[in-house]
Amino acid sequence: MRATFIHEAGDVRVEDAPDPELREPTDAIVRVLLACVCGSDLHPYHNRPPSDGPASIGHEFLGVVEDVGSEVSGLRPGDLVVSPFVYADNTCDFCRAGLQVSCRHGGYYNAEGVGGGQAEAVRVPQAQGTLVRLPVAEDSPLLPSLLTLADVYGTGYHAAKGGQVGPGSTVTVIGDGAVGLMAVLAARRLGAERIILMGRHRDRTDLGREFGATEVVPERGPEGVERVRELTGGDGSEAVLEAVGLRPAYDMAVGAVRAGGVISRVGAPQYVEAPIGWDSLFSRNVRLAGGVAPARAYIEELMPAILDGTVEPGRVFDRTVGLEDVPDGYRAMDRREALKVLVRP
Amino acid sequence: MRATFIHEAGDVRVEDAPDPELREPTDAIVRVLLACVCGSDLHPYHNRPPSDGPASIGHEFLGVVEDVGSEVSGLRPGDLVVSPFVYADNTCDFCRAGLQVSCRHGGYYNAEGVGGGQAEAVRVPQAQGTLVRLPVAEDSPLLPSLLTLADVYGTGYHAAKGGQVGPGSTVTVIGDGAVGLMAVLAARRLGAERIILMGRHRDRTDLGREFGATEVVPERGPEGVERVRELTGGDGSEAVLEAVGLRPAYDMAVGAVRAGGVISRVGAPQYVEAPIGWDSLFSRNVRLAGGVAPARAYIEELMPAILDGTVEPGRVFDRTVGLEDVPDGYRAMDRREALKVLVRP
Repeated sequence: MRATFIHEAGDVRVEDAPDPELREPTDAIVRVLLACVCGSDLHPYHNRPPSDGPASIGHEFLGVVEDVGSEVSGLRPGDLVVSPFVYADNTCDFCRAGLQVSCRHGGYYNAEGVGGGQAEAVRVPQAQGTLVRLPVAEDSPLLPSLLTLADVYGTGYHAAKGGQVGPGSTVTVIGDGAVGLMAVLAARRLGAERIILMGRHRDRTDLGREFGATEVVPERGPEGVERVRELTGGDGSEAVLEAVGLRPAYDMAVGAVRAGGVISRVGAPQYVEAPIGWDSLFSRNVRLAGGVAPARAYIEELMPAILDGTVEPGRVFDRTVGLEDVPDGYRAMDRREALKVLVRP
Repeated sequence: MRATFIHEAGDVRVEDAPDPELREPTDAIVRVLLACVCGSDLHPYHNRPPSDGPASIGHEFLGVVEDVGSEVSGLRPGDLVVSPFVYADNTCDFCRAGLQVSCRHGGYYNAEGVGGGQAEAVRVPQAQGTLVRLPVAEDSPLLPSLLTLADVYGTGYHAAKGGQVGPGSTVTVIGDGAVGLMAVLAARRLGAERIILMGRHRDRTDLGREFGATEVVPERGPEGVERVRELTGGDGSEAVLEAVGLRPAYDMAVGAVRAGGVISRVGAPQYVEAPIGWDSLFSRNVRLAGGVAPARAYIEELMPAILDGTVEPGRVFDRTVGLEDVPDGYRAMDRREALKVLVRP
C-alpha cells in the first residue's frame, strides 16, 4: 500500500509500505476512506531530527473494516468506522473512568509496530474497544464532520469539559486553529453564554463566530490579556481553554483567567516548565486542567448532533488532497494557507 | 498593647504598639484569647530582608469582641469569635462562590493598616463577614481546636476539597507539618479509604495515624514516589495533597499522582516555575488544584464535629507560650522542636 512517512523536519513523503496484517486476535484492518493532518503533526514537521529516522505519521482516520481478529466482536468487514487517535480496550478501569488515553492495553498510532492514519490502510489494535461504527453510507456528506470525532472535535470538547464549561459560563478560547474553533463549538454546545475567541486570522475567527464565539480578541500577549479583562469587568474569564501549546499561550491564559477559574489545556505543551507559583495560580486559586483528550470517551455523546445536522465541525476542513499530495497538505498548513487538510486516499 | 513584630529573618520581637481602634464602620476590635504560629510565618522568619523594616505578624486568632463599628450587625461586645486568616465581606460574588480569599473588599492581616494576630488585640475589617461566633465559654477546653478553624484545619480541608476527596478515595498527603496532618484529618472526614502520609518525623506521623492515615511513607524524593507507587499497584494516588510548598514536594506530587488524578496544593509555593509539560501533567491528564484556603467558607461546616468532640484538630498544638515568649515559639517551630505553637496573650 501507499502510506505517509516523515523523514525529518520538513520532509514528508508518500511511499510504498507493506500492507498491514492482523497480528493479534484483537486487531482489525481498516481501509482508510478519509484522513487528515493534525496541528500536532506539524510539531515533528518543524522539529524532527534526521537521526530519528523515518516514521509513519497520521492518527485521524475513518474507513471500512476489511478484516477482524478472532477476538473482535461487534465489528465485521464492511462496517464503516471511525478511530479515535489513541487505541484502547475500552474496558479497563481507566477506560471506564473515561480516560482511554491511559488505557492499560492502549497506545498511540505510529509506535510499537502500529502504522499511521495517512495511509491506504491501518492495523488497529484493540479494535473492539477502539473503533466506533458510523451509521451512514460511505458516500455520506457527513463523513468530514464525523472524522473530527477522531481527534479535533473531541479535543475541543475535552478542553471545554476540563474547563467545567456549562450553562451561563464565560469562556475564553486561546487559539484560532482547528482545535480552538472546536473548543468554541464545544463550549457553545455546553451552554456557555459568552465565548471570547483570541485569534488574529480573520477567516478563522469568522468561522469561530459561526461556531458560537460572541467576541473576538485579535491582540496577543499582555494587550490581549488586557482586552479580555476589559470584556469581563476586570475579572477575567471563569474558564480559559488553551488550544495552542506554546508558552506565550499559557502566559495569556494565566493573565486572562478569573480568580477561582480554570485553565484547561489541550494544545500539546511545547514547554516543560511554566509559572505555577503564588502570583500565577496559587494566590487566586486558579486550577489547571486538560491533557491529551480521550476522544473515544466523547464519540457517542458528540455523534448525534453531527448526524442530525445540528453541528458541522467538518467545516474546519478548508482543503482536500489525495494521498499522494499529503506533503502539499503539510506545506499548506505550515504556511497557514490551510486551516486543516482533509486527505482522501 | 503588646504585639509581635518581625524585624528581619530570625528576629521576632514583642513590643509596645498603639491599641487598635475602630477606623471604618465595618470594623470590630477583638481582644485576643488565643493565637498561634503558622508554618507560613516561618517563611519571613527565614527570608525577610532587613530593608523591608519591621512588620506585625500573625494571622490566626480567636478572642472576645470589644467594640464594633456602626455598620456591624450580628456581633456585640462580649461575643467570643474566631477570625479566618483573610478578612472578607462574605457577601460579594467571590465570597458567595466560597472564595473569600478573593473578596472584593477583603484583605490580609499585617497589611494596609491592619495589625497581626500575635498580639493583645486586633482591628478586624469587614467584621460582620469575617468573624464567626463560637458557642462556647471563654474557658472552654475546645478553644485550641476551634482556633484551627482560623487557618490550619480549613487549609487542610481546602486541600482535600481541591483534591476531590470523597468516599473510597485513595489519597497521598505530602508533609507531616500541621497542615499535612489537618489534610489527613480532612480526607478522613470526607470518607477517604486509604490515606498515605509522607513524612519522616515519627511523633508527627503517629499523630497522623490517629487522625486517619492508613500508611506512612518516611522516604522522600524518588524513593518516596516509588514507595507510594508500590502501595497503589503501580498507579499512584488519585489525589495528592501537597502541604509543604517547596519544589521537591511538588516533584514528589507529580511522581505520586495517578493518571487522571489531582495534585491539590495548599503549601504556599516557595517557587515560581515548575514542570507542567507533557511528561509531568499533560500526557496523564493530571490536574492541579488548590491555593490560598478560603478558611471562612469552611468554618460553619467544620465546627459541629469539633463542638461535639468527634474531632480534635487542636491536638496539633504541642507547645504553649505567653505573648512575651512568642519569639521562643518561633525558634521551637523553626528547629522542629514544636509542631505548632499556641499563644495565650
